[in-house]
Amino acid sequence: MKPASPTAAHGTLSYEHAGVNYDLIDPLKVSAQRAAAATAVQLQAHGFDEVQASRGESAYVVDLGPFYLASIVECLGSKALVADEMARLTGRSWYDGIAQDTIAMAVNDLITVGATPLVVQAYWAAGGSDWFGDAARAQALVAGWRKACEVCGVAWGGGETPALAGIVEAGRIDLAASCTGLVSPKERLSLGDRLGAGDAIVLLASSGIHANGLSLARKLVERLPAGWLTEVAPGLGYGEALLAPTTLYSPVTEALWKAGIGVHYAANITGHGWRKLLRHPAAFTYRIRQVPAVPPVLRFIQQQAQQDDFEAYGTLNMGAGFALFMPAAQADQAVAIARGLGIDALVAGTVEAGPKRLIIEPLGIEYGDDALQLRASG
Amino acid sequence: MKPASPTAAHGTLSYEHAGVNYDLIDPLKVSAQRAAAATAVQLQAHGFDEVQASRGESAYVVDLGPFYLASIVECLGSKALVADEMARLTGRSWYDGIAQDTIAMAVNDLITVGATPLVVQAYWAAGGSDWFGDAARAQALVAGWRKACEVCGVAWGGGETPALAGIVEAGRIDLAASCTGLVSPKERLSLGDRLGAGDAIVLLASSGIHANGLSLARKLVERLPAGWLTEVAPGLGYGEALLAPTTLYSPVTEALWKAGIGVHYAANITGHGWRKLLRHPAAFTYRIRQVPAVPPVLRFIQQQAQQDDFEAYGTLNMGAGFALFMPAAQADQAVAIARGLGIDALVAGTVEAGPKRLIIEPLGIEYGDDALQLRASG
Repeated sequence: MKPASPTAAHGTLSYEHAGVNYDLIDPLKVSAQRAAAATAVQLQAHGFDEVQASRGESAYVVDLGPFYLASIVECLGSKALVADEMARLTGRSWYDGIAQDTIAMAVNDLITVGATPLVVQAYWAAGGSDWFGDAARAQALVAGWRKACEVCGVAWGGGETPALAGIVEAGRIDLAASCTGLVSPKERLSLGDRLGAGDAIVLLASSGIHANGLSLARKLVERLPAGWLTEVAPGLGYGEALLAPTTLYSPVTEALWKAGIGVHYAANITGHGWRKLLRHPAAFTYRIRQVPAVPPVLRFIQQQAQQDDFEAYGTLNMGAGFALFMPAAQADQAVAIARGLGIDALVAGTVEAGPKRLIIEPLGIEYGDDALQLRASG
Repeated sequence: MKPASPTAAHGTLSYEHAGVNYDLIDPLKVSAQRAAAATAVQLQAHGFDEVQASRGESAYVVDLGPFYLASIVECLGSKALVADEMARLTGRSWYDGIAQDTIAMAVNDLITVGATPLVVQAYWAAGGSDWFGDAARAQALVAGWRKACEVCGVAWGGGETPALAGIVEAGRIDLAASCTGLVSPKERLSLGDRLGAGDAIVLLASSGIHANGLSLARKLVERLPAGWLTEVAPGLGYGEALLAPTTLYSPVTEALWKAGIGVHYAANITGHGWRKLLRHPAAFTYRIRQVPAVPPVLRFIQQQAQQDDFEAYGTLNMGAGFALFMPAAQADQAVAIARGLGIDALVAGTVEAGPKRLIIEPLGIEYGDDALQLRASG
């Protein structure tokens, strides 16, 4: 995965500056994607087949006959490091929210294909047995994990709690979640073959930075005189605002299905910001006419990192955590359903025939076909 | 999970000495198991139910109607640290075997419930982008991962390759795999309700230490004058012997099913050595009359760590990587099938009515009901 390379103004802080070098990771990703694709044939010996269009999407889908199986594993990333800093400063554990973040990384990706998440497995790899010795922190992680499972209607199947001294740093924990679900009935599959000109783009509100962009956010704190406690809004400190747990979107996608709303495609807006709206491989123009309110912490990061809108919206979610593409006639109802579940939403724009690009009219910015490269080519 | 506490002779090196303190991890595990069990009810809203007997087993099972769904996530553990040391000493990458080890951790657990593994997801969390910059090592990991998937007949669905500087140590990688499979037809479910007195215990050979006991093995190297290059057998160094990839057992379980052999129960012999034979919750006496050959590296570890047989067989696999419990009349055929697939096997003993214990007659040792505590009680 490679972010676009905007022209960097003096003082701008980009992902590359935050220490993640995609030039080193990309060759591995491409080679892994090719090797993975070559294993699909293995399913045929069992009488099954992959849904090839799911390669390069957010979850992998297999046709089981009566329904589709979707599966995924996702990493939290570095957000736990912010929780550790804030625990040091505030004396309380933030791992209940971190648990929700980790599950959200998996569940919000899994539902993009139209799956109902059913089972989550926990992967909690600590830097040593000592990590688990902080009972308050460990119990917050357990309680938050359970609560997030309940919000998503999934069973917590089990998991791993290894102590990995020498691999995970002392005092740290590497958190991930795997999730398995079903697309049932099969017409609920939303890999995008029904996406078309005229579809509405509905954006669901984010709660803040979610769990992407944290390397940048952590780098930025070095520039702030009051560090993690710097106010991003009256009474709201930077660290606390960053730790707002990621919104769980599966209650919305389940409710939309039950209401008869046929989602054509969906995108979880994560590490590439709004460029994720360009995820579908087909050529369409995505025209945004209305943008959601920007959470204070994201506006703050944009300002402090001296990012223009092109870089900010291409990196962070800027208030839109999840995108749904659906028949225009159903969009208002979808917005009402999301709001009824406590998640703000808006009909932000439309899909149009035209060259592949994303136009955000209110901001006067545009991303072209080359702005998002997630698939191995050739 | 808590190993038994054998009387330690002077100089004995146990798991506790190797730096893993289960007293700190256990309370978290118990509380997580209880919280996880409480989420099972979530499945009912989707028209499904968990198979309750799978709680505490190696994989979590959900009844989907036409078949059972099994899922799991498993960590490699610390074996990659041995690969890193050996790469430094030999100049070659050992990550093709490490990939197989990681997949084996997931697949060998998943198949214990009678599931056919279908999809594996890769979790490769590196200490920084630099890890992926070593192209030979990265390509070995990719090639080994693909090959292991092909041996197991699973599709490699995708995965995560995060760079986690500050969480994973620089130059290291935290490897895990999730695996999803089906139990189909449903009578293939082997959670042990058919386990009974008179069943045969068939043991499948291990290739060496597999991926459990590596903390102990790494600690031990400090005592060896020639370190990783110390010979454990003529021409076979300690490090190289440790890195023998874990045997993948799913070809055997698939072949047994196709041959009409009804496995009643199965145990993957990992972190608790032969005590895993006591995994089933019911009270049976497991009587072993014949033990497999001990791989040189395991005999070497036992000797160097000054472990008696009670501690060695209670910690390491000692040549038996996987146990199958089945009708006695089918056991010889099962052994022949495994050998035909290149995996040595033997009819090692029988299940008997009687108090819960494991008796290894040729060694004169016995483990009681309290030797293995894997389940949250109450």
